[in-house]
Amino acid sequence: MPDPTSASLIAVGDEILLGQTLDSNSNYIAARLSDAGILVKSIRVVADDEKSIIDALTYSVENFKIIILTGGLGPTQDDLTRSVIAKFFGRKLVFRQDLLEQIEQRYRDRNITLQEGVKVQADFPEGAEPIPNKYGTAPGIFIRNNDTLVFAVPGVPREMKGMVDDFIIPHLVENKRGIPFRYRVIRTAGIGESGIAEILGEWAFPDIHLAYLPKFGCVDLRISAVADNNEKAESRLDVAEVFIESKLEKYIYGYGDIELAQAVGDLLLEKGWKLAVAESCTGGMLGSMMTDIPGSSDYFEGGFITYSNALKAAKLGVPTDLIEQFGAVSKEVAEKMAEGAAKNAYTEVGVGITGIAGPTGGTPEKPVGTVFVAVHTPEETEVIRFRFKDDREMNRQRSVFAALTMLHRILKKS
Amino acid sequence: MPDPTSASLIAVGDEILLGQTLDSNSNYIAARLSDAGILVKSIRVVADDEKSIIDALTYSVENFKIIILTGGLGPTQDDLTRSVIAKFFGRKLVFRQDLLEQIEQRYRDRNITLQEGVKVQADFPEGAEPIPNKYGTAPGIFIRNNDTLVFAVPGVPREMKGMVDDFIIPHLVENKRGIPFRYRVIRTAGIGESGIAEILGEWAFPDIHLAYLPKFGCVDLRISAVADNNEKAESRLDVAEVFIESKLEKYIYGYGDIELAQAVGDLLLEKGWKLAVAESCTGGMLGSMMTDIPGSSDYFEGGFITYSNALKAAKLGVPTDLIEQFGAVSKEVAEKMAEGAAKNAYTEVGVGITGIAGPTGGTPEKPVGTVFVAVHTPEETEVIRFRFKDDREMNRQRSVFAALTMLHRILKKS
Repeated sequence: MPDPTSASLIAVGDEILLGQTLDSNSNYIAARLSDAGILVKSIRVVADDEKSIIDALTYSVENFKIIILTGGLGPTQDDLTRSVIAKFFGRKLVFRQDLLEQIEQRYRDRNITLQEGVKVQADFPEGAEPIPNKYGTAPGIFIRNNDTLVFAVPGVPREMKGMVDDFIIPHLVENKRGIPFRYRVIRTAGIGESGIAEILGEWAFPDIHLAYLPKFGCVDLRISAVADNNEKAESRLDVAEVFIESKLEKYIYGYGDIELAQAVGDLLLEKGWKLAVAESCTGGMLGSMMTDIPGSSDYFEGGFITYSNALKAAKLGVPTDLIEQFGAVSKEVAEKMAEGAAKNAYTEVGVGITGIAGPTGGTPEKPVGTVFVAVHTPEETEVIRFRFKDDREMNRQRSVFAALTMLHRILKKS
Repeated sequence: MPDPTSASLIAVGDEILLGQTLDSNSNYIAARLSDAGILVKSIRVVADDEKSIIDALTYSVENFKIIILTGGLGPTQDDLTRSVIAKFFGRKLVFRQDLLEQIEQRYRDRNITLQEGVKVQADFPEGAEPIPNKYGTAPGIFIRNNDTLVFAVPGVPREMKGMVDDFIIPHLVENKRGIPFRYRVIRTAGIGESGIAEILGEWAFPDIHLAYLPKFGCVDLRISAVADNNEKAESRLDVAEVFIESKLEKYIYGYGDIELAQAVGDLLLEKGWKLAVAESCTGGMLGSMMTDIPGSSDYFEGGFITYSNALKAAKLGVPTDLIEQFGAVSKEVAEKMAEGAAKNAYTEVGVGITGIAGPTGGTPEKPVGTVFVAVHTPEETEVIRFRFKDDREMNRQRSVFAALTMLHRILKKS
């Protein structure tokens, strides 16, 4: 018997199979369902052809009670989902005047002429329920087939997300399709997987699954529990969380979706300090990540992208003889960059990043992947030398996360 | 009869089904296979349990002749792929001294103590061929099962990529598992999908499939052809490409994988000009994107992240009364920012970006999504007002691509 709380996702689209488009929709839906206690047990990506879609539907109907399809609801000939699910579930496609009017209204709102082809989106499987589309023209489709719930949403991420958040998840929760499964994510920076494993020792919570999720040198810990009810699952997680906090307190920067940049911003706000950056090899990536957070203007002032040595000297006041003596990628220069960022942007805190991202520019003493990160506060200036690897993009990302990690540690203790 | 040139991908891992990890591996493999004329017809993500993996293998063996599994080759109890494929294809797992020695060598190279558990990676399906792993310890697995080729590679992207590029693709190409399928990507900026469709008119090449791939306001065109042989497919593409070029010449910035930032860099190099940026709402993202390109120090000097108005005035020389009169988000300020970037970083070309990324800060006259981008060259200063939408991250990305698009157009004509 298929489990009523497990779900199957079907992404329809040749562009995914060709490797042109990343299937980020399934990732989004899986995360949202899992938050709601519904476990995705299968994700399938299938081609824009009838047989492939039917194959995946057949398998899903046999094994699962919740099925969500993405893609193939548009107005072109490639878009088969509407007609194939109608056929598969034995429903006729019927023209719905109310849907056409909605579609026409949308086009009027946007001052675009309605093209004839779009009208096909008003042909709808009999007995199915339209899912409102806040961000586009194609309505989603909701079919109850005995106790199997089938949802079809567009492949456009914005439209898909709106329907998942506003319609599908609320419907599933109301109808108690979730199981008492709960999880939490505890986010750490400044320590690796093996370091965490050593500190935590043997895992003493048999009912709780612990997973390590490393990313750019930081590690997220996910603890999850299944129990008779949500309260029990939550209280089990409470105990494990307290244990982890007692062991890893100084490395934890937040919980759930919080970003490290946000945690750094919160600490800056707390202290009433402002931050400025001086970036060489990262070229603005740290600034970009800080300003990714809404409201960052309260603590982020700006900074300097000093890719050239001339700018390091002219804008940050790094002495040119220092650059000549130690090289632009050096402890001494990183330090002066951090101090210069703060001084020249009139802030309390400054960060300097200088390194060899690669692929060229390495030397035996300073191979590709060598990066110096300095953090200056009113109390101290600290520099760390990192030795990352060969990959340019990875080295830049790692440098930014190293800077955020240092900032977090220094601001937390000071 | 399964088609010998079509492939099935199976990604093994609970973390993908939970929505914690995006399945970027399948995307990478699909793109590489498609380049080699092998079409992926199915992607399945399955849980770390035996039944799920066997289900997916059963379906794949029935329908396809090339099967690639990712994930589940590590040393922990979760890692089932090795034992399950051995069982499925009726092979015993046998201990291989040569593989253990390779694994031990890797640990010695890295100065890490070999943990007992890792030795399980030397248990290998009988008659299978190990796929060398340049970047990790777990060897990949290659099994020939009659004329079905089965590859299993680790889920770690770096290790997976190494095996796909160095072993799987060369093997498939040598054994002529590809079909004469060819495609090209023509990249455009500064024109939308409907504009392109209008210029191209009715598509006059029935043998060639044309796809529009829009991203951040730019549009990639993919033309693809299947023919009796590669030469025929290529020559058909030649004709279509010449046609597209004749129609869209001024919007095309490159072909294949080239990034718009790279195309802009090439034009700067050609003219011998250097670029500096002044970023407000994008906070360094344009600088980050420019410096993503290896060798960008030849034309990218650096710039200013002027998130605050104080820095706009102090570092770029934007008159404070101009900011007061027109607001920080205005044509006038963007213009002065672009000029100030060039002047203060001693470059020929400067870019200024100022806007309201959201979610707050909008007004009736300048709602969220209003962004001014200015480009200054020795010949002119041009400003454009954009009106993007509500999404902060998207507005920032769009602003950066708008700046790159303007730079490309202006540098190309000047």
